[in-house]
Amino acid sequence: MAGSELTNVKSPRVKAARRLAKRAFREQDRRFLAEGPQAVREALKLDGVTLELFVTAEAELRHAELITQARLQGVPVHRASGEVMSELTQTVTPQGLLAVCRLVHVPLEEALTGEPKLVALLAHVRDPGNAGTVMRAADAAGADAVVFTDASVDPYNGKCVRASAGSLFHLPVVIGAPVAAAVRQLKERGMRVLAADGAGKHTLDDVDLSGPTVWIFGNEAWGLPEEIRAEADDVVRVPIYGQAESLNLATAAAVCLYSSARSQRVP
Amino acid sequence: MAGSELTNVKSPRVKAARRLAKRAFREQDRRFLAEGPQAVREALKLDGVTLELFVTAEAELRHAELITQARLQGVPVHRASGEVMSELTQTVTPQGLLAVCRLVHVPLEEALTGEPKLVALLAHVRDPGNAGTVMRAADAAGADAVVFTDASVDPYNGKCVRASAGSLFHLPVVIGAPVAAAVRQLKERGMRVLAADGAGKHTLDDVDLSGPTVWIFGNEAWGLPEEIRAEADDVVRVPIYGQAESLNLATAAAVCLYSSARSQRVP
Repeated sequence: MAGSELTNVKSPRVKAARRLAKRAFREQDRRFLAEGPQAVREALKLDGVTLELFVTAEAELRHAELITQARLQGVPVHRASGEVMSELTQTVTPQGLLAVCRLVHVPLEEALTGEPKLVALLAHVRDPGNAGTVMRAADAAGADAVVFTDASVDPYNGKCVRASAGSLFHLPVVIGAPVAAAVRQLKERGMRVLAADGAGKHTLDDVDLSGPTVWIFGNEAWGLPEEIRAEADDVVRVPIYGQAESLNLATAAAVCLYSSARSQRVP
Repeated sequence: MAGSELTNVKSPRVKAARRLAKRAFREQDRRFLAEGPQAVREALKLDGVTLELFVTAEAELRHAELITQARLQGVPVHRASGEVMSELTQTVTPQGLLAVCRLVHVPLEEALTGEPKLVALLAHVRDPGNAGTVMRAADAAGADAVVFTDASVDPYNGKCVRASAGSLFHLPVVIGAPVAAAVRQLKERGMRVLAADGAGKHTLDDVDLSGPTVWIFGNEAWGLPEEIRAEADDVVRVPIYGQAESLNLATAAAVCLYSSARSQRVP
């Protein structure tokens, strides 16, 4: 353990981490917080991403292998009191483990190296829990990248990181791309751009999803604005067979992404 | 408006509604709370379900058509102050509209009249947001019923009602069924019972989903216990193509239910 236990919530080290709860400071410091053993495990799998680790005495025993791994990688490990950990974390029942990580997003060009076949583009998604769940579904469905446009939530938001369940560290994430520019670049790569929207003319079952596809997902409350739907090659809806008005954004995204994954694999 | 505005959070009428936030009182009074215009609209579509309506002055103007409809149905409408509404609702930004409804669940036999083709069975689902989102997805996918087994969350929990986005009022919901008994009844109706579990031998793409199917969904953290998996005709996993460890329960359920919906419709 580097030094003794941190017990003062006002110590400079704690304050430097604490301020990363705010987006402006994350951008300024180029760092964000990843809470809990799952996120920490995934962060440690990437070279040089984990910059510091805070751990309570209890979590140090419970997750000894992660702490050892962090030390072997030269990551400074700070023992923190329960009070300090509560100060640093946002969950009701913090799991005693918190990593300070460097930002992991990449430019769009870099995310598209290779031959991308499936990309999720989040336009105007504002709810961090939804955004993180979409990242997790995109990862599970084997997507090549997730693009957060400039009007979307920050993927480094604590709720988003938690909901992604480690997926933020698994696949290339792009942030701040203006929608029109991103769509143009993706089309230039030969990808078909589909906007998922309840007002779509075609349903998921009517369109050919076997080729390289970009899915655009919009805001839960008001869907996609006309100018974004106009950018897309097609506007596609998930068919509603019952009386529900719509699907939750993240579940709709999972259904679309898995339809693509299957069409691209199953002959 | 029946009487003047309710401003006293300790009035008997407010207290009688307030206590419905607790499961024990919901069961005792056979009533639950439905918040917001969407839930109220769906509740009013059913005969005799809405017993009382609380509304703020602001919401009365904004949702005049709903209030008129309630009155035409003989539902007592109470004007409530903002303070009373905050006391009654659980959301951070209450929408000024709250219905007291009678419980709407039905016995399993009643839910299975007709020829059920798709049923979602929630075993050990504990998170109310997840449970509500699964109800909404089941409704959207055209399921015939949603069954909450005895170890699952209460579908009348406020968070669950909200996440269901009205679907609680759309399709037959069964509560408190012991898993084994429910599975036996469903099998006797000629339905194939599939347990959704990350440890499944077969993937979603390997199984024939064209016939009448029951999907069992388990707990987000620990999946389905062995004895439930043993009751099922097959244990099926959503394929993971990327590095994600698993999917969020509600997104996995949506992918399974929509796979069934498609297989039952698309030749």
